[in-house]
Amino acid sequence: MQPDPVMNAHGEWRPASEIAQAVAGKQISALSVTEAALARIAQHDPLLNAFTDVTAERARAKARAVDAAIAAGEAVGPLAGVPFAVKNLFDVAGLPTRAGSKINRERPVSLRDATLVERMEAAGAVLVGALNMGEYAYDFTGENVHDGASRNPHDTTRMSGGSSGGSGSAVGGGLVPLALGSDTNGSIRVPSSFCGIFGLKPTYGRLSRARSFPFVASFDHLGPFARSVEDLALSYDAMQGPDAEDAACSTRAIEPVTALLGQDIGGLRIALAGGYFKKNLFPEAQEGVAIVAKALGVAREVELPEVARARAAAYVISTVEGASLHLDRLRTRPNDFDPATRDRLLAGAMMPAPLVDRAQKFRRWYRAGVLELFKDVDVIVAPATPCIAPKLGQQTFVLDGVELPVRANIGIHTQPISFIGLPVVAVPVPLDPMPIGVQIIAAPWREDIALRVAYALERAGVVAAPRPKGF
Amino acid sequence: MQPDPVMNAHGEWRPASEIAQAVAGKQISALSVTEAALARIAQHDPLLNAFTDVTAERARAKARAVDAAIAAGEAVGPLAGVPFAVKNLFDVAGLPTRAGSKINRERPVSLRDATLVERMEAAGAVLVGALNMGEYAYDFTGENVHDGASRNPHDTTRMSGGSSGGSGSAVGGGLVPLALGSDTNGSIRVPSSFCGIFGLKPTYGRLSRARSFPFVASFDHLGPFARSVEDLALSYDAMQGPDAEDAACSTRAIEPVTALLGQDIGGLRIALAGGYFKKNLFPEAQEGVAIVAKALGVAREVELPEVARARAAAYVISTVEGASLHLDRLRTRPNDFDPATRDRLLAGAMMPAPLVDRAQKFRRWYRAGVLELFKDVDVIVAPATPCIAPKLGQQTFVLDGVELPVRANIGIHTQPISFIGLPVVAVPVPLDPMPIGVQIIAAPWREDIALRVAYALERAGVVAAPRPKGF
Repeated sequence: MQPDPVMNAHGEWRPASEIAQAVAGKQISALSVTEAALARIAQHDPLLNAFTDVTAERARAKARAVDAAIAAGEAVGPLAGVPFAVKNLFDVAGLPTRAGSKINRERPVSLRDATLVERMEAAGAVLVGALNMGEYAYDFTGENVHDGASRNPHDTTRMSGGSSGGSGSAVGGGLVPLALGSDTNGSIRVPSSFCGIFGLKPTYGRLSRARSFPFVASFDHLGPFARSVEDLALSYDAMQGPDAEDAACSTRAIEPVTALLGQDIGGLRIALAGGYFKKNLFPEAQEGVAIVAKALGVAREVELPEVARARAAAYVISTVEGASLHLDRLRTRPNDFDPATRDRLLAGAMMPAPLVDRAQKFRRWYRAGVLELFKDVDVIVAPATPCIAPKLGQQTFVLDGVELPVRANIGIHTQPISFIGLPVVAVPVPLDPMPIGVQIIAAPWREDIALRVAYALERAGVVAAPRPKGF
Repeated sequence: MQPDPVMNAHGEWRPASEIAQAVAGKQISALSVTEAALARIAQHDPLLNAFTDVTAERARAKARAVDAAIAAGEAVGPLAGVPFAVKNLFDVAGLPTRAGSKINRERPVSLRDATLVERMEAAGAVLVGALNMGEYAYDFTGENVHDGASRNPHDTTRMSGGSSGGSGSAVGGGLVPLALGSDTNGSIRVPSSFCGIFGLKPTYGRLSRARSFPFVASFDHLGPFARSVEDLALSYDAMQGPDAEDAACSTRAIEPVTALLGQDIGGLRIALAGGYFKKNLFPEAQEGVAIVAKALGVAREVELPEVARARAAAYVISTVEGASLHLDRLRTRPNDFDPATRDRLLAGAMMPAPLVDRAQKFRRWYRAGVLELFKDVDVIVAPATPCIAPKLGQQTFVLDGVELPVRANIGIHTQPISFIGLPVVAVPVPLDPMPIGVQIIAAPWREDIALRVAYALERAGVVAAPRPKGF
């Protein structure tokens, strides 16, 4: 009798690392893992609404191929038989890349998978479907007028977080151990925070974006979600490296991180982000940061320069590059957009250009200033979101006494970081009843450092992906 | 008795190369050359209005130092004793850098010369003054409401061309053998064409812009004007090379060109720019291009891709980057601008940002397409201006049957070239009564090729800087 393909002996959902070992070791078949994932999707997705497409037949075929390779004694990758799903802005052969929109559904189906999907499958992983997301990735809520909101597994009346809401929901609810998403202003870190899972937004240019649908090319990032740091590292290692099909993808060689996770972090200089990052926080967000800082023995603060301007500049560039990307669609099919997305894009379409010129100049200055800080520190700890997941449909919240729109302000602590492409691991602090995330930020190309710190926190029991009730 | 410091035995104005030789060889003193230049400025500048500042005392001191060095047997540079002047957007110690404006005159005086001024003087040249220009370099006419128009020495009722109008006027009128200017959309090539002199707009990033006043940082270029190709090459060689004080300046080592000028050009693949560049030309411009093409035996044409769009994109980016640069001045001192400059900048201030995003995307595409052409050709010949110098104050002209504003349309053939930073030598065809220029365009970093072709044309008597009557 095969062991349970979903639960391990500790009564926990099996992480990807364990699945791959069990599959490679022939204790479980890849097909049984895939069938179990498909069954969990069938059972829970009607409530979570994380998936927009389930690629069951493709998944079974891939799982059988993995099992056949193992039976034939062939080498299989480090993610052998691990189910995963991708935000629906990744090209998946046979599906139109909807990117959360209504309009894109009319596009021809993709003929080839996105590079990162290819690399995950080359490592043995099994794609089981495509995931719900905010329209055209211009979102922090996980809501979607066309597909309905993806829901938070810890409280299905709450937001999953956007724009990779389906990714957060699917991994948080244990439908798949791994998912891919994208992060322009926070779209990996926000759902990680709200759904209580780990997320990696790598250095800008590290992971190929070939055959994915863009939003703001100059700070779009792709990256993985997982329930453990090791799983995050395994998938990151599987996806790393140059790609001639993405001109913006770095030519740096692969620098594997998984084997480094256990290294001692005692020598790292870790600081708390002060000033701006200590403001506009609900008590849970303050608590999350305090727990992580205490566990790491952080005794100092650094202040990033002019962070409020950085956030404003990221905002301006996002709306304008987004508007430029969608201008023809705005002209020809305005009524097929979510009205709220359309309004944001129209604001960009009307933005006076000198503001963008100045935002770009500021960006170079700000980047140089932040890189200067990294001469003195290795890691900066900052909140991931100002709050736990708000209620679905919630329009406003009160931050430091000011009533503000929720949607626009969820990313206030993530935007200033992705704006200059720094690598970040979002780690979940398992507060009850709702988890909250913390950003572990490193210098460019030092994903290894952020992951090692996250791993140490996980080993110490400080951060963890909690299992939501009912899943 | 010393020989005439201005005229040589052929009754021609001495070129810089000849002055430097005579000075280094002690046939003429640097001081006498400087005094002669100052005397010519005093005599002719009241009419030409090329100079806004004459740095007589500084020039005499420098000339004396050159003479003293020669007397002491010390090495002097290849421009020993050669008078030159610079567009008033170059920093000159002791002067405010007015950049053609009224507003900038209130700036504190510069404490240090621009890098290119330093390099010219390090080569022995003697700065005699600063030159009139279009306000903030946003100009093709050489007119200036604050300082009055600089005038064309071939017909003082005509435009010198902008924005480096004083540079064209001063070299065209023989007040100095060398001048420096800047070229964003044509501001070296246009005055070269109208005033009948040689001008070099180098590859973008080749010459340092440190301590000069910008206009459109992403395609501002600085470069020299002269009455011979050798003089152009000598000054270019004196100014070449990296400069840590200008982050946009290339780190490429100096690649001297002067010694290469006489190399045979028989092996070069030379083509005429077809399509767009054959349109919108007055007969003189057609004639100028035809004369040069015939002399070079050009038998083929190439068509640059989507040139009209390139010009439009250059236009959009110029107005927006200019507006961004001047936004605070536009807000606080609108009435201190030339109203026409202000209108152009206000248009940029209101430009919707997605147009710029698209213009930048187009630019990358266009640049790649043009570079592709340079796999098959070494040189492209194109008109420099659609017309000879218009009358001062002239508002419109008729191009291909359409009445158009003069100011905005003088640069239609230069804008698509500087937009992607290609090196160009503007060569003067000495038509009577008014000369006209032709662009000799090469691939990036191949100033040597453009200069060799210009030199061959000059040796063949096809192009030359004609001496205007009365000067």
